[in-house]
Parts: sequence; structure tokens; C-alpha cells
Amino acid sequence: MTAELIARLAAILGPSGLVTDAADMAAYAIDWRRLFPGRPLCIARPASTAEVVAVVKACHAAGAAIVPQGGNTGLAGGAVPDASGAQVVLSLQRMNKVRDVDPVGLTIAADAGCILKVAQDAAADMGRLLPISLAAEGSATVGGVVSTNAGGVNVVRYGMARALVLGLEVVLADGTVVDLNRRLRKDNAGYDLKQLFIGTEGTLGIVTGAVLRLVPRPRHTVTALLSVPSPKAALDLLALAQDELGDTLSAFELMSGYSFDLLRRHLDLTPPIAAGDWFVLLEAGASLSGLREAAETALAAALENGTALDGVVAETGAQAAQLWALREHITDGEAREGKSMKHDVSVPIADVPAFLAAADIAIAQGAPGAKVNAFGHLGDGNIHYNVILGAGHDGAAINALVHDVVARFSGSISAEHGIGQYRVDELVRRRAPGEIALALALKHALDPDNRLNPGKVLPAPG
Amino acid sequence: MTAELIARLAAILGPSGLVTDAADMAAYAIDWRRLFPGRPLCIARPASTAEVVAVVKACHAAGAAIVPQGGNTGLAGGAVPDASGAQVVLSLQRMNKVRDVDPVGLTIAADAGCILKVAQDAAADMGRLLPISLAAEGSATVGGVVSTNAGGVNVVRYGMARALVLGLEVVLADGTVVDLNRRLRKDNAGYDLKQLFIGTEGTLGIVTGAVLRLVPRPRHTVTALLSVPSPKAALDLLALAQDELGDTLSAFELMSGYSFDLLRRHLDLTPPIAAGDWFVLLEAGASLSGLREAAETALAAALENGTALDGVVAETGAQAAQLWALREHITDGEAREGKSMKHDVSVPIADVPAFLAAADIAIAQGAPGAKVNAFGHLGDGNIHYNVILGAGHDGAAINALVHDVVARFSGSISAEHGIGQYRVDELVRRRAPGEIALALALKHALDPDNRLNPGKVLPAPG
Repeated sequence: MTAELIARLAAILGPSGLVTDAADMAAYAIDWRRLFPGRPLCIARPASTAEVVAVVKACHAAGAAIVPQGGNTGLAGGAVPDASGAQVVLSLQRMNKVRDVDPVGLTIAADAGCILKVAQDAAADMGRLLPISLAAEGSATVGGVVSTNAGGVNVVRYGMARALVLGLEVVLADGTVVDLNRRLRKDNAGYDLKQLFIGTEGTLGIVTGAVLRLVPRPRHTVTALLSVPSPKAALDLLALAQDELGDTLSAFELMSGYSFDLLRRHLDLTPPIAAGDWFVLLEAGASLSGLREAAETALAAALENGTALDGVVAETGAQAAQLWALREHITDGEAREGKSMKHDVSVPIADVPAFLAAADIAIAQGAPGAKVNAFGHLGDGNIHYNVILGAGHDGAAINALVHDVVARFSGSISAEHGIGQYRVDELVRRRAPGEIALALALKHALDPDNRLNPGKVLPAPG
Repeated sequence: MTAELIARLAAILGPSGLVTDAADMAAYAIDWRRLFPGRPLCIARPASTAEVVAVVKACHAAGAAIVPQGGNTGLAGGAVPDASGAQVVLSLQRMNKVRDVDPVGLTIAADAGCILKVAQDAAADMGRLLPISLAAEGSATVGGVVSTNAGGVNVVRYGMARALVLGLEVVLADGTVVDLNRRLRKDNAGYDLKQLFIGTEGTLGIVTGAVLRLVPRPRHTVTALLSVPSPKAALDLLALAQDELGDTLSAFELMSGYSFDLLRRHLDLTPPIAAGDWFVLLEAGASLSGLREAAETALAAALENGTALDGVVAETGAQAAQLWALREHITDGEAREGKSMKHDVSVPIADVPAFLAAADIAIAQGAPGAKVNAFGHLGDGNIHYNVILGAGHDGAAINALVHDVVARFSGSISAEHGIGQYRVDELVRRRAPGEIALALALKHALDPDNRLNPGKVLPAPG
């Protein structure tokens, strides 16, 4: 049966479309952090939606499971196969074109395998902005961004990927193509079926193309770094920024003094301002004049009333990039410090200071000596509360400690990274049974044989 | 069985919670435009989510269908019962409280029956904006807005209602409460189940509460009316406004010269600028200085290059209100002219001029003498292409003519008003069978006995 399926796929895809050699399959078999190794049957690399359909039908007939994969940059093991050697990885990488850009209608249409950066650049060439920005943008694909409902640093202004999806082209478990790939800003005609495929990590259908919303490109940008005495002060600063800058605020990042200590010790990076217990990196963009003036007014007010201790507004793009480099290297600094238990949690924004205090107490009591590297997107209530593990620390126990605190604040155990295979058990533990049952009912309705990315996001059907 | 159900509901709801008198039921039995008369068994008016659950369970046991109703301001007959006398209308009107407002976290939580205007005012009291604005906001409810994915005049900037929903509390067909009422800006933990209940008009569950996203309240607003020579010129003006004003643009409305003719003849309303074949009303808001300057720059450029023929920027709030009154009275002017066939269509924004030209030709050929009152949200590609019917004109035939043109542009037959009972047949006619099948599969998964708002949005299960 297996040999028959491979022969069938080879006939569909031709020599460049099917990978069966173990060495060639290696890059598709494991995630980039090398945490979730798998063993695929083969890698199908279709070059068109029609080929995706043919692959899905062949797998359907053979009873083989399919694992859709884009840039393979996910953090939750959602795009890699299990160890059975029986799953077909369906890579969308060869479907990599921007289909069209409409600068007035503010839309971009692209194949699922189009690299996010390529799509960003195509929008920029037309004077518009595709406002999804994340560390992996040079490798992540449009289909992966949609399928994982990716977040990133601009969510405070533009929302998660879901908010930017206008249309989708999807192949269902039985090979049916559902063409929801409309270029409409407003469409209220019946169920919005594309929502089913956003953020469900390929478990309900395979995204083969998307139409995303663009926004006008702000002419002016202001980037500032401030030190603040506490998370509460950072929250006060956020309120001030909302008042003064309105929704021009496109990033509002909180970083702990410990994060900056890691940067200094391991990467020789230091902030151009006086140290503090906490730091805020904020960015705003607008086409109107008056942006920088408003930012400087807000900063002066914050310094005057003690909300901020010190601060700098970037004078040039290069300076802005230096400020961003601090934020972007924190994960690197953490890795150099040692093994860590990472958390991607969110709570209501106003509860972030209380959450941080409660989590710190839980760690101090439950895992004495463990260091906390907390940073993240305060503007969204999303904190990467990472715990550096010392000798004798139990990662799983620390995970439970942190998520217990998250639960007390009615938060989320995955604010932006998704569930993949990594957090399935924890999701089932934390969510009400009624929610899991409802999700399984959807899965059963769309993929009754559990052939699309089985083992991801959901527990095995009961 | 019926008497037993009524007795059971009376026991659950008490005297003020159940209406069975025909005269008292009248207001719930028909939509406000009096196009979709129905005959309910009774009106259940629960005062709490627990009472909603009890009502749903009682109806479930009795095999009775439920029609959820908010402010009953819909335009598609989605919230009124059929003529069988067997359906229970479940009015959420007694669940009408704002639960809380968080001005820093930018959230508002409210009961489903809370009037939209009440929620808007609660947000404004905290210096924030709930950016859903529509004609019926004094009667429409939060639950209705969510369940119909309402649009309105601010969609160009803030999106449809869906984009503003952070959390939902829902009662399923069997009475299970699903508490998705989280206050999180970011939550990527598993399937986003609340999407199932947004815009599905109560056919998959009953929304009993919601958490909506707020935005900073712009300090400055600019409102302008311009006359333009053509829809194409209006589109050029939109591109110019996007360049100069960025995403501060919160409304961009197109109105035909004929719309203004109706205003003049029936309501004695005239624009304060020279007449043109088409008019644009635009509004932008920002907290930064420089908004008015940017708007005036854009307006001057448009007048200079012939994109606009004449224009005025409101000097005061009262003048802005006068400009808006023109836009808001068009429907009234149309009603005074005569009976009309209304359309709520959208096409890709850049295709609006071609759509209008093609539709005008289709009407001129297929329904000679019929007048077209075209106006709407050009910034969203959403045109209310209404056709005034003369003697001998066939509304259904005109509807088919217009929707045929919409189909040529891959548009939507309901951009914002929804499907309700009014457009079910047309939806089935226009959508691919695969989409209808997928929607019915969802319905079967969540409401296998077809007890939640049967006959709305979907065809009868096959």
C-alpha cells in the first residue's frame, strides 16, 4: 500500500515534486529548534492547487495522514510529522508566488508558500504595508502565518493574522477545493467559512492561497526606549501613549532588567539609557505630521511624573534598528544563559503587573533559584515568561506552576505560538470539556477520518 | 405539548419573563420594516444566562424551535419567527447591562441585550471609543451586532463587528453554556470557537454576552463633503486620502447625484457645495495634530487636478452633523420616492466604478425606466444599489439582474446586512455547492435537530 501511494504521488508530482530520500527529507522531518523530531513517509511538494488536490485524494484513498508544512518556522511542532514513518508531509514551498497587489483596494493575493517577506516587499513596492512582522518573516510563509494565526510585534495596532485575512483557498480532507479567495473588504453572505481554517494549523483543511488586507504605509515612524520602575509604571505609560498617540501605537514591548542583563553578559549589548528594573520599547507610525512631537510630549510627561526613569527617542532609522536589536536578541541571550522553560501566555492587559508578581512568587516558592526572563508584548497582554532552569529544576513542574497562575487570571497558555503537538495535553487540561468537545465536533464534521495533521491542536478523537 | 412547554417556560421566567398575549407579542413577531411577519408561540424574556439555559433546555425537551432576538433592527428578517405559531422567540432585551469597561486594556464586557448606544456611551465615559456606528444604534443590541457581524460607517478603519469581538458567552442548542468570554487581546490556544457564533445569526448558538475591543478616542475629527465627476474620480480621491491621511480615514461614503436629488425633492435637504454627478463624504480622526492640515492639503490637491469639483470641510461639529444628515437621510428620501428593490452588495474596491457602469447598463436594458439610487461605503467596496420600481417593474427580476452583475465581479450579495430569511434562496443560488455543504455540515455538528433559528441563513438540511 505504501509503495503504491509513493508511486501514485511520484506520478502526480514528477521527480522534483516528491522527496523520499532520508537525507533530503531531514529538513522537513524536524522543526528548526530541533525539539520535535519526526519520520515522514515522504515529502510531497506540489506546484499548484490542482496538484495539492491530487495528493490529498491519493492520500485519502490510501488512508495516509497529511502534515501540511510552510516555512517550518513554528514554535509548537505543528508542522512536522510523527515518528511513525507513515505520514506524508505536504510542503507548500513550491507554490510561492505573489498573485497580485491592489494598492487602492488594499489587498495582496499570494500562494500559501509565498515567503512572508516577499509578500511584505511586494506591498511596500506599491506604497502599502502588510502589517505582519515577526522574527521568522524571511522563512515563514503566508499559508503558515494564516494557518497558525500568527502574531508578532504589530498586533497592538493591526491585530493577529486573522484580522488581515480577506480570502482563502482551501483544500479539504477529501480533496474538495473551497474557493473562498475573495478580494472583498465586506462580505456578510452566510457563514464566514474561512474562519475555520485560520489558526487551526491544517487540521481542518489545507490553505493553498490567501488574500490579505494591506494598510496605508505610515510616512513617519517614531521609536523610543524607556526605563521604568515597574510593570505598573509600564502600564501607566501605555495608557499615556494611548491618550497621546491614539492608535498610531504599533508596538509596546516590555522587557525585564534581567533580559537586559542577559544581553550585556552574553552579547555585549547595552541600552543607551540609564538602567532600570524594566524597559519599554514603543513604536508608532502615522502619515500625519505631529507624530514625533506627540511622542516627545508623552515621553516628557512620563519622565516628569516618574512613570519613566530615562528614555531616548531614535533620531535615525539606524538608531531605531539598534533599539529593536535589543528586543530581538533577548531570546538569543536567554539561549546562551542555559536551558529554559518557555511560556507564551497572555492575561488581560491591566492584569499583567499582578500576573508577573504572582508568577514570580510561584517560581520563588516552587522552584527556588530559577531565574525568570520575562519580556513580551505588553500592549497585547502577551508575556513570554521564560524560566531559566538550574540543576534540579523540573521543567514540567515549572510549566504547571506558571500556567496555574495564568489560569487564575483567566489567561491563555498560548497567546501567539499556537498549540501544535507541544501544548495539546496542556490545552486539554486547561480548557473546559465543553470547548474541547466543540472543537472535536468541528474536526469530526470536516475530517471524520482524522487524516489532516492528526495529533496537532486536538486530543485524539474519543 | 405546547401548553406544557408554556407552563414550563412560565415557571422558569415568571410573569414578567413570558409573553403569550397576541397583542403584546406583535412587536416581536415582525421586523421593524414590516416585511417579514411571523406568528410566535410565545416570547421568552430571560433575565440571566441561567434562565436562557433553562429556556433552551425546555424547548429542546419539547422539540420547539427558538428564534433569538435582540433589538429586532435587522434588515433581512433574521430575528423574527415563521408563521407556524410554533416557534419560541427568545428576546435578550432584559439582559441589558454593561458588565465592565477597562480603559487601559481597551475592553468592554456587556450582556447580549445591552443597547449598542449604551455600550458606546459607557466607553466614551472612560475616554475610549467603541467603533461600531450604525443607523439603528439606539435600538440594536450588542448580541445582535455580534450575531449579524454588523457593519456600519466605520468599517473602513475598524472592520466589521467580528474584528472587535474578543470574547463571547454562548448557549448551545442543548443548553450547554460555552464560556469564551475572555478579555484577552491575544489568544491562540486552540480553535477560536467564538468565530462560529459571529455572523451566524443565532443558527449555531445563542450569544448571551460579549467582550468587545475598544480603541483610543481620536481627539480631532475632520469631516468633508466633495462633489466628484465620476465613481472613478471618487476612487482616485480614496487613493489620495489613503496616502495623505493614512488609516485615520474612518468613513469614505459615495453618494449619487440622484440620491441628492431625492434629498432635495422630498426632504428639502441640499448640499452646501456645487452639485456634481457624484458626492463623497469622508471623515478621519486622530489624536495627533496635523489632521485638518493634511485633509485640507488632500482636498486642495483633488480640486487642483480635477478629481474633485467642489468641496467643503466642516468648521464645527454642527456642520459635520449637517453633512452626515445628508448621507443618513438618503434611505428616507428613497422611501418617499416609491417602492424600491434594495441591494447590499460588495465588489473589490477598485471594481466599484466598473460594477456601477455594468449594473446601470443591465438595469437600462432589463428594466427600462427604473431609477437607480446608488450610495454606500466606497471605502469598503460596499454599495447599496437600490432600484426604484416603476409600474410594471418586477422586483425579483431586477434583483437577479443586479446580482448577476455582482457575480461577474466576484462580489457579495450581502456585504453587511446578512442573509436572514430574506436572502437564503439567493445565497444558495449564488454560492458554490461545496460552500453550502460545508455550512450545513457545521449546522449539523452544532444543531443536529435544526432547532436554532431554522430557516435562517441556510437552506433546510437535506
